[in-house]
Amino acid sequence: MAKSMCRAVGALVLAIAFLFPSAISVGAQADRGIAGFAPVRVEAELAREQKLRAIPDAAHAESNLRHITSEPHLAGTEGSHRLAEWLRDQYRSYGFDAEIVSYSVWLPQAREVKLELKTPNTITLGTPEQPIEIDKDTYNKDAVMAFNAYAPSADVTAPVIYVNYGTQEDYRALEAMGISVEGKIAIARYGRCYRGIKTKLAEEHKAVGLVLYSDPQDDGYSAGDAFPRGPWRPMSGIQRGSVQYTQIYPGDPLTPGVGSTANAKRLAPADAKNLPRIPTMPINAQDATAILENLGGPHVPHSWQGALPFTYHIGPGDAVAHMKLVMDYQQRPIYDVIAKLHGTNDGEWVVLGNHHDAWVYGAVDPGSGTATMLETARALGELVRSGWKPQRTILMCEWDGEEPGLIGSTEWVEANRAELQAKAVAYINTDVAVAGPNFTASATPSLSGLVRDAARAVQGPHSAGSVYDAWLEHAKRGQTELSGIARTQGGSEKMGEAPVDALGAGSDFCPFLDFAGIPSIDTGFVGDYGVYHSLYDDFYWMKTFGDPTFAYHATLAKVLGTVALRLDEADVLPFDYAVYAAAITRATNDVISRANQLGIQDATTQAVADASARLTASAAHVAQALQRSGYASFDAATENRINHELVSVEQALLAPGGLVGRPWYKHTIYAPGSYAGYAAEVLPGVNEALDRDDAATFQQEAAALAAALSRASVRLDEVAQLANASK
Amino acid sequence: MAKSMCRAVGALVLAIAFLFPSAISVGAQADRGIAGFAPVRVEAELAREQKLRAIPDAAHAESNLRHITSEPHLAGTEGSHRLAEWLRDQYRSYGFDAEIVSYSVWLPQAREVKLELKTPNTITLGTPEQPIEIDKDTYNKDAVMAFNAYAPSADVTAPVIYVNYGTQEDYRALEAMGISVEGKIAIARYGRCYRGIKTKLAEEHKAVGLVLYSDPQDDGYSAGDAFPRGPWRPMSGIQRGSVQYTQIYPGDPLTPGVGSTANAKRLAPADAKNLPRIPTMPINAQDATAILENLGGPHVPHSWQGALPFTYHIGPGDAVAHMKLVMDYQQRPIYDVIAKLHGTNDGEWVVLGNHHDAWVYGAVDPGSGTATMLETARALGELVRSGWKPQRTILMCEWDGEEPGLIGSTEWVEANRAELQAKAVAYINTDVAVAGPNFTASATPSLSGLVRDAARAVQGPHSAGSVYDAWLEHAKRGQTELSGIARTQGGSEKMGEAPVDALGAGSDFCPFLDFAGIPSIDTGFVGDYGVYHSLYDDFYWMKTFGDPTFAYHATLAKVLGTVALRLDEADVLPFDYAVYAAAITRATNDVISRANQLGIQDATTQAVADASARLTASAAHVAQALQRSGYASFDAATENRINHELVSVEQALLAPGGLVGRPWYKHTIYAPGSYAGYAAEVLPGVNEALDRDDAATFQQEAAALAAALSRASVRLDEVAQLANASK
Repeated sequence: MAKSMCRAVGALVLAIAFLFPSAISVGAQADRGIAGFAPVRVEAELAREQKLRAIPDAAHAESNLRHITSEPHLAGTEGSHRLAEWLRDQYRSYGFDAEIVSYSVWLPQAREVKLELKTPNTITLGTPEQPIEIDKDTYNKDAVMAFNAYAPSADVTAPVIYVNYGTQEDYRALEAMGISVEGKIAIARYGRCYRGIKTKLAEEHKAVGLVLYSDPQDDGYSAGDAFPRGPWRPMSGIQRGSVQYTQIYPGDPLTPGVGSTANAKRLAPADAKNLPRIPTMPINAQDATAILENLGGPHVPHSWQGALPFTYHIGPGDAVAHMKLVMDYQQRPIYDVIAKLHGTNDGEWVVLGNHHDAWVYGAVDPGSGTATMLETARALGELVRSGWKPQRTILMCEWDGEEPGLIGSTEWVEANRAELQAKAVAYINTDVAVAGPNFTASATPSLSGLVRDAARAVQGPHSAGSVYDAWLEHAKRGQTELSGIARTQGGSEKMGEAPVDALGAGSDFCPFLDFAGIPSIDTGFVGDYGVYHSLYDDFYWMKTFGDPTFAYHATLAKVLGTVALRLDEADVLPFDYAVYAAAITRATNDVISRANQLGIQDATTQAVADASARLTASAAHVAQALQRSGYASFDAATENRINHELVSVEQALLAPGGLVGRPWYKHTIYAPGSYAGYAAEVLPGVNEALDRDDAATFQQEAAALAAALSRASVRLDEVAQLANASK
Repeated sequence: MAKSMCRAVGALVLAIAFLFPSAISVGAQADRGIAGFAPVRVEAELAREQKLRAIPDAAHAESNLRHITSEPHLAGTEGSHRLAEWLRDQYRSYGFDAEIVSYSVWLPQAREVKLELKTPNTITLGTPEQPIEIDKDTYNKDAVMAFNAYAPSADVTAPVIYVNYGTQEDYRALEAMGISVEGKIAIARYGRCYRGIKTKLAEEHKAVGLVLYSDPQDDGYSAGDAFPRGPWRPMSGIQRGSVQYTQIYPGDPLTPGVGSTANAKRLAPADAKNLPRIPTMPINAQDATAILENLGGPHVPHSWQGALPFTYHIGPGDAVAHMKLVMDYQQRPIYDVIAKLHGTNDGEWVVLGNHHDAWVYGAVDPGSGTATMLETARALGELVRSGWKPQRTILMCEWDGEEPGLIGSTEWVEANRAELQAKAVAYINTDVAVAGPNFTASATPSLSGLVRDAARAVQGPHSAGSVYDAWLEHAKRGQTELSGIARTQGGSEKMGEAPVDALGAGSDFCPFLDFAGIPSIDTGFVGDYGVYHSLYDDFYWMKTFGDPTFAYHATLAKVLGTVALRLDEADVLPFDYAVYAAAITRATNDVISRANQLGIQDATTQAVADASARLTASAAHVAQALQRSGYASFDAATENRINHELVSVEQALLAPGGLVGRPWYKHTIYAPGSYAGYAAEVLPGVNEALDRDDAATFQQEAAALAAALSRASVRLDEVAQLANASK
């Protein structure tokens, strides 16, 4: 699924991250050093990495993507099963111990998705995407019809109200205008937040249905030339997508918290809290025109006007719509592929993952990730063939059912939680691996230094410099454009580091980080990409616009391989908790000041402040102790214990009971916002309680947060003690 | 003509003015006082004003406007002549001594205005505005075809380049992209700056022609519902307008600086510096679509994308256009109406003015002004009938030829310069008097307090409060929306005064202030108005959208009448030079700091700073002296001398030789920007020299500025001395 944000919002997030560069990483690589490696082992690691980075190859990636996109492969269909089997065989051919792990999950398929305008004239809408002559794949009759996964079957007829992006802010504006969607069909444009949040808000405001459309202002002709002239969404393009309330919990709706194994206890669908109760369907801009042109009522606020060629109105008016959805819900099998490269120490795992199911062809989402992962796997396999044995075990996972609701990853994490929490040192995700030339990364702050170091180690595909150089340059350009301030001369280094964002929602790192507390990374190359979740996200698009030479695929395979090798071979895991503690302290300071403004200033906020200060001190002690040690002086048992403790810090940040109201989400520092889009909500429990002015919940969440921070400090103190003791 | 700005820019200007409210006016009315009136005369003045304000009437204004808009009346046509005669007769019927003053001026009429797309297909463009069934006036065959006044005849064929708004900034962006308009036809959208500046820039960049169009983003369907559903520009609507280089000098191109009387020496047209040398024509958004859709070349920068439903490209590409203009240039007569209400003191004049010529019907521009002026005149006439005799002589002027280039006012001011400079105490202009409900005013800073006081004295048409209350409220709302900050509770008064802008370009105050140094005011009610200079600016539009009850017409007539009465009856003219000096000091501080940044810091900047400080001190002395006097203790001769000196301060700010490069513009503090749109350029000589990095001109202009400020101080010192001496 990956996140889709309008470019402006994306740029803003980028800029904010960029304005507050991380503190200088105490664990960062010194002159010729590598974070986490004893000096004596650095040279061998650099040689190994160089060997690995020579292997990934554009032609291989292209041929992989051509195969991956040879037919539609929606989760729960035979196309997806066939792709899983092919992937398993590919991993096996690279020397991996690969198998398919299947779960039976509650999964809909669409039988009928119908939309009509009833008045002023009857017009049949819900038109499919048009084939385009130059791109033969767009003629395939097996392309799945456009629908929103987990919308219920329904048959409703009602006047229509335009709700802009359908965000909380938009409903507040409607309320101020005295307009209600109760009993109405809402029409919202895509963008600004996850479509499941749009559905939840429409449901909460008592709409009887929701129509989602792609406004050309957001990813169509206003953004740039539309497909096939350019990479943006044509008027006929439809964004499919799930409306599962993954913000409450992702995965199989009937088995929250446990794997959907044969014997798992399943909820009745009526009791599943992550299922929408009102129908939602996606349409293209052409169909939206027919509806929006017929809305009456007041003229919209200026920022609600999109790029269709008429004045937008809020409604209601002449437009009465009829929506009919017939959904076929069944237990259906999904097929994860789990491929292992066994290490010397099988008790520690480095996990990489990417999904393989797609809405239609999914050349970008997720095919570019799958093609890239295969090249990383081939490279690791060749290293093994040439005599290397991984220190830790490397898992490469190809998830099924990500599009309907992160199902394959969630069920696997839930089913293997205890083992993962004991063994997994980190999870590295890619999804939209290549949609353009701009490198982007999100990570738990402990891993931001590792991502930057890996990007520094890899040559950029079309520039003299490294991936990191281009990444920093692009961030600076965005920053400059945003602020309107001319770039300062020769100020590169002074402008901070390339931005690593917080992990939000929208891909398979979610169960790893938010449910199991595994430190995570998500990365890829982004760019001008308007065919998200449409028929047109296909091989032709990639070959023409996204990555014509496939150089970015090969480059990302090298980045992933470098990250994997460093995590695999490090003596002491390269987790930088000083950076993490600094990020947490900024966030707790913000939350305490918000609470103070609302009149809350008591023992709980003091406890959060104290715990945050203690965490900072503990992280500093660890950094000092490890730096003094030079990573060189530990015996194997101590090293193991240090690594075990380092990994456990992230798990210490989980609240055993989860967040109030959504217990599946256990992480106290990061969660997807309940209403706030794809972006990560930082300190979700306390911040959302403050959003709601809910002082009682705030107290409860603040206590849980302080406890989590204290547990993390204990783990860090343990590391410092172990490191100091073995000097 | 009036200025037309896109709403966003308008809001910004408003906000800036609002952020810097004028200093508290020392001459402002005290408890029951009126600025400039001896206490003993206040009660009579208030009674007179109350009587006057009871007279203007919505039904009269409506009937006047219906007559004014009964046929098209472009300058130089019989329609305009007929209207002038009717106006003369109306003023006579109110008791004015009214006459027509005619000038013979160099004026074009359009015989053929043709535009074709030659490739990729031949399409005939230049389509006229479509009639609209509900609005019968739109069927009139006599409606003037759309053209740009003072475009030359020409016949050119060339590829097309899109230049966004065609501003200096846009050409800089094109240059950075390596794209030139040399030998090409440029297509620019209306907005951001005066169309004559767009033409000048296209000419300077060696385009062979310029096509101007109205993008729906700026005043069409993106802004709100288009006519006849709403007040905004329909796809077929065309903005006519002059492209005379009024920024160099306005009026008859052949007689710069002197009146176009029978014996005036005339330039050869080839020597007139305010005439464009490349053809320009206006088209509607429908025709623009045909051209813009066929442009190739790079995709435009994001802010250049308008609201037409496709991706904008810069060109060139397939689109080759053919422009043919046949213009009939002749000496043609124009007809000003000058109506006088003689006062006791015929040696001092209060001048009001408004133009009567229109592009087509001109219900808003200028009909609303003309209908309003007539009601003010009727009210003043009734006061005279009931026994009042004005103290000063009141002139009410109806200008012809404003649309092609402020011709009627400019020629009259040039022809009567000496008498005006000896007698006129102020000029009050209205043009777009009513285009909506929001009061707006521009004025020389000395008069901003008078405008605010008059607005406080007049009841708003649809609210319990005064015109001033609604004006301030609207400004605060704009400010709040702009800043995104919630309004502070009960903070009305703390947020400053309602904003009075600086006088820029685009209406008949220009020759009075910029050429003759007469203190001036321009005022009216504005709002959602997208039919500017089109066929649709007609009676139906006004009756349906602009002012259905004509209450705003009647209200503005009361404001104009109040301003006129106060200027007419004041003992000491209510000119606040403390406010003016503060505005000048802010501007000189800015200019000195700009100069310093460019490395200029010498005797000249010091002289400006000194002169500015001296002006502030002199203005403070005047304020103290007048306040102490209570306006009550002067003998008639002293009062006359004081008033004469007060009026002469504005003339002291003129540089006898005018601005470098455009000697017609003599005012050192205000001028229309040479390139910077409709907005006033403050301290134009020095600022534009700095814009061009022209240090030598800067020195020259700074010296002229310092001399002007010093002359103004001498006049103010004279006032203070007279006031103090007579205590």
